[in-house]
Amino acid sequence: MDMQVSFLDRLFEAGLLIDTGVEGLYGRSGQFEDVIAAFERLIDRFGGADGAEAIRFPPGMNRAYFEKSGYMKSFPQLAGTVHSFCGCELDHVSLMKCMDEGGDWTGEQKATDIVLTPAACYPLYPTVAKRGRLPAEGGLYDLQSYCFRHEPSTDPARQQLFRMREYVCMGTQDHVTDFRQRWMDRGVQMMDAVGLTVEIDVANDPFFGRAGRMLANNQRDQNLKFELLIPVTSAAKPTACMSFNYHQDAFGTKWGLELEDGSTAHTACVGFGLERIALALFAHHGLDVKDWPAHVRKALWG
Amino acid sequence: MDMQVSFLDRLFEAGLLIDTGVEGLYGRSGQFEDVIAAFERLIDRFGGADGAEAIRFPPGMNRAYFEKSGYMKSFPQLAGTVHSFCGCELDHVSLMKCMDEGGDWTGEQKATDIVLTPAACYPLYPTVAKRGRLPAEGGLYDLQSYCFRHEPSTDPARQQLFRMREYVCMGTQDHVTDFRQRWMDRGVQMMDAVGLTVEIDVANDPFFGRAGRMLANNQRDQNLKFELLIPVTSAAKPTACMSFNYHQDAFGTKWGLELEDGSTAHTACVGFGLERIALALFAHHGLDVKDWPAHVRKALWG
Repeated sequence: MDMQVSFLDRLFEAGLLIDTGVEGLYGRSGQFEDVIAAFERLIDRFGGADGAEAIRFPPGMNRAYFEKSGYMKSFPQLAGTVHSFCGCELDHVSLMKCMDEGGDWTGEQKATDIVLTPAACYPLYPTVAKRGRLPAEGGLYDLQSYCFRHEPSTDPARQQLFRMREYVCMGTQDHVTDFRQRWMDRGVQMMDAVGLTVEIDVANDPFFGRAGRMLANNQRDQNLKFELLIPVTSAAKPTACMSFNYHQDAFGTKWGLELEDGSTAHTACVGFGLERIALALFAHHGLDVKDWPAHVRKALWG
Repeated sequence: MDMQVSFLDRLFEAGLLIDTGVEGLYGRSGQFEDVIAAFERLIDRFGGADGAEAIRFPPGMNRAYFEKSGYMKSFPQLAGTVHSFCGCELDHVSLMKCMDEGGDWTGEQKATDIVLTPAACYPLYPTVAKRGRLPAEGGLYDLQSYCFRHEPSTDPARQQLFRMREYVCMGTQDHVTDFRQRWMDRGVQMMDAVGLTVEIDVANDPFFGRAGRMLANNQRDQNLKFELLIPVTSAAKPTACMSFNYHQDAFGTKWGLELEDGSTAHTACVGFGLERIALALFAHHGLDVKDWPAHVRKALWG
């Protein structure tokens, strides 16, 4: 924890992250953004030849799709619903009175049709399902968006609003597990190119409550989730900077994703935690990009 | 309205925007994003030599700062607060029961410390105020973020989640009004370079309710807000694609922004509605970028 606070303070001091008064909610400097942009170009170089369809969803998604996704069953504590004032002028007078008196004015806000995107791929599945059956070669999509997770923390690698780059693959079991393995190999190569030492390990999602433990154990036992780990604030507890997820036919069944022959699609996704990767680079190579090793600078900026 | 629906349908059909089932909430294709990226580089070319400090805030801001900003007084209907489940396992059982029965589960969500950013510059003022007095040359900042406004619409130029690029200037009255005038001139030049015909007109913000009408009239009478308008879905009602705002010392006073000599800073901002500019380009030059006039393609992609 001390290491986390101290790294966060150093990032604030160097101006790379900007304190907003809320834990896990930070502004980014131009330099910080430039590192993320450079790393995204590196991702493009590794993945570009695959011919993925690029889609960029905004940081919010349709609440109806979110509800159907089952996210509130597994991760209710992390989700963020968007609420608005929907009253008349008289209601507004009461609202202003409540705010002036320092009361809790948020209880009168009503849920809108929008929920903050919890992972870049959540809006994709219903989008692809609406198009009809997948083509013979399956589906491959390139996504990036800001994602929200309600988990305030002083660890700079655990932010409430952060960007996730993702590739999502839809097809047969062999097709999507090959895709996942290919990106595990690429992930190691990419991090090696930017001077970061990694390990890959089996992992589980942070399922809620005691019932969630069984889901987590099941996920681990079936090797459904792997993470690429890099030390950021702690060598003993390295940070997950990429994840590699095989969903079996769970999303295919839920959303009605069908292959060309009418069978249910299997899906897999690989995600890059862009802020975490940038933080790993700053933690390893120093806060001044000019001082980074030449081969790292070359891999990122050519 | 029919023009709006028909343009939106054509954008969906061409795959440039992607229907998510919620009005004003759309996915973007890689091509759409490429146009926005190209236009942002054009902005950089016009504004780059000014030496603005680049800061990128996430799409949410500190609720305490938002409350202090007075946004809920002027535009309560547009704001989006972020709410989360904060209960125990027993509460989660009730939540799941409510969702399974198709009930309204959102009433139990509690407001977090985060509100969706209503305009890219809102998180900037408290950030700059915390640094102490401004330097002698004033302050100049380059911002971009997704912004939220709760105004569902079938007009593709009125989205609930959209990106705003902004320059914000802090200094004396002359300094910041000169800045504003410079960007009005540049705005016309930039749009001319990409083949768009524009007009600039005095404008007002959408203040809430009857009391808001006085604020709107006052804003117009004092020439505090101008907009650069381009026809997108209607020649009769062109769309505001840029705005040029002089805040007098309102934000300086509210946030305690001080010039080098201790006097209160005046502020001004210019904003680019990035989706609106992209839509204006598609409306004028056609949905296939390959068919755009050569001089427009050259201005955007060199």
